Amino acid sequence: MKGLSTGKRDRRVLVDHTTLDDAGVFLHGKGEALVQTVDFFTPVVDDPFDYGQIAAANALSDVYAMGATPLTALAVLCYPDAELPPEVLREILRGGEAKMREAGVSVLGGHSVRDPELKFGYAVTGVAKRRQLLSNAEARPGDRVFLTKPLGTGILSTALKHGKLDRGLERRLTRQMATLNRRAAETAVEFGARAATDVTGFGLLGHGSQVADASGVTFRITPTPRLFLPRVLELATAGEIAGGLQKNRAFYADKVDEGDVSEDVKLALYDPQTSGGLLVFVPRRRATAMKAALVRRRVWVIEVGEILPRGKKAVELR
Amino acid sequence: MKGLSTGKRDRRVLVDHTTLDDAGVFLHGKGEALVQTVDFFTPVVDDPFDYGQIAAANALSDVYAMGATPLTALAVLCYPDAELPPEVLREILRGGEAKMREAGVSVLGGHSVRDPELKFGYAVTGVAKRRQLLSNAEARPGDRVFLTKPLGTGILSTALKHGKLDRGLERRLTRQMATLNRRAAETAVEFGARAATDVTGFGLLGHGSQVADASGVTFRITPTPRLFLPRVLELATAGEIAGGLQKNRAFYADKVDEGDVSEDVKLALYDPQTSGGLLVFVPRRRATAMKAALVRRRVWVIEVGEILPRGKKAVELR
Repeated sequence: MKGLSTGKRDRRVLVDHTTLDDAGVFLHGKGEALVQTVDFFTPVVDDPFDYGQIAAANALSDVYAMGATPLTALAVLCYPDAELPPEVLREILRGGEAKMREAGVSVLGGHSVRDPELKFGYAVTGVAKRRQLLSNAEARPGDRVFLTKPLGTGILSTALKHGKLDRGLERRLTRQMATLNRRAAETAVEFGARAATDVTGFGLLGHGSQVADASGVTFRITPTPRLFLPRVLELATAGEIAGGLQKNRAFYADKVDEGDVSEDVKLALYDPQTSGGLLVFVPRRRATAMKAALVRRRVWVIEVGEILPRGKKAVELR
Repeated sequence: MKGLSTGKRDRRVLVDHTTLDDAGVFLHGKGEALVQTVDFFTPVVDDPFDYGQIAAANALSDVYAMGATPLTALAVLCYPDAELPPEVLREILRGGEAKMREAGVSVLGGHSVRDPELKFGYAVTGVAKRRQLLSNAEARPGDRVFLTKPLGTGILSTALKHGKLDRGLERRLTRQMATLNRRAAETAVEFGARAATDVTGFGLLGHGSQVADASGVTFRITPTPRLFLPRVLELATAGEIAGGLQKNRAFYADKVDEGDVSEDVKLALYDPQTSGGLLVFVPRRRATAMKAALVRRRVWVIEVGEILPRGKKAVELR
């Protein structure tokens, strides 16, 4: 979708597909903006209800990452009706609806087409006060950076496909991907976060680089094993890595000063995430209070680093 | 998407996927509603720019059919990157953007996935004053009914695939499918139309039945050859009919008193349309003035029938 000239842009468009932001933003009403995104993908887990939930949580995440409140959704469904029993289809839609209901979002409709390959997701519309919007471009030196879900869903999903995950870890992976970024986003807005993004296909280093470049700063990440889901580093070393990981590394390595971080950690930092957490950039003086509020609200959270004046690279690992 | 229980519905949802309306409607702001739809499909013409334009006009049409003004759109793209040169992709997107610009709509983003089968379309958001909304359920006895594009795009598209269309008629077909229902919708709202729908996959008799059933009335259609694009009746007789046509007939025949209308006309009235015109239901006293305004604004228009108190069938042909 990138690189397409749009000609003269409506002045109400604050964010569109010419930037790398998480969702499009359109001013509508006094000081208010519509925040819109569409996302759908092939199954990431076997259970159809879980798949529906994850697809919903993932689509909503782009709206949360802008600091907005999602209101409505339209389902997007491509399905092989010859191979897929109607119960499976119903379970996918039920999972999606359940997650949308949890988020307080009304599913207004959708479109389905027959397709050899199953795909499911949503177009989501949210609203935000203009001054609350969390863009990619407002991180400032001194900001502290927090992550709200551990990393490694790509590596664990790959291992799952290869039968290398026990049932407990599979459940944890599924539950995490189905978890809404709602409370994380609300807390970020409440504590005056300056910027946010959700960590998805480009991994922590990809999305981190995008914010650093857009904001004209350097993002220093202090990697620790606690950043990752269980067994992620071990499975990365064992070669359980999806194609997207190496693509991310090839694309973003130039942006990153990798320092002397060990290879397994580096791999895992490039791991593409499905329905990943928020990366929240918050002024230093609010950082402790925001983290405490996240913990109180039972949001998994870890401080991953801080923002420096722009150095040589967008991201440095120390 | 139909038949899915949604549990407790948000009171701001005026229309969702449990009805057969053209788009979902969500109250937002004082007396104002968001009107949302998503639609995408496989190519209907060979030229990629034309395909993009038609996909955009078709997606916008559901919003126009509700009497709303479209504001924003998100692209939905499934494409076979191995087979499809990037220029083709660019032309599809360019065609879509050009049509969206013509409609005054901002494309805020989109999502693309690799897929063996090309599909393209949009999720569209519009706004309307609540009291201007044109639903499916408000047609009343005495209303006159107008159609704003001639019928037969399914039959002509089938003939086109079989090499049976001359270049002139192919161009006319393409141009018609790429034509916005914007002026038709604006005029309908201006002249106090009570109901509207766009004629798409279920054909005139399918969509006509839906409005008649939702409104509790009977829709009397007076078929004439002028309802159809050139050569449609002749090509229908020659068997140039898509699978969707017979499905429509099987599904809707019970709703229709077919009278003694000739077989070619009946076939063509069940023909599924791509980016078809609006079917507008307007009080009798405004009918002549609305028709004159449509003609003045260069919208193709024909009076197709009138609304009667509910009889035996939803639709009768006379």
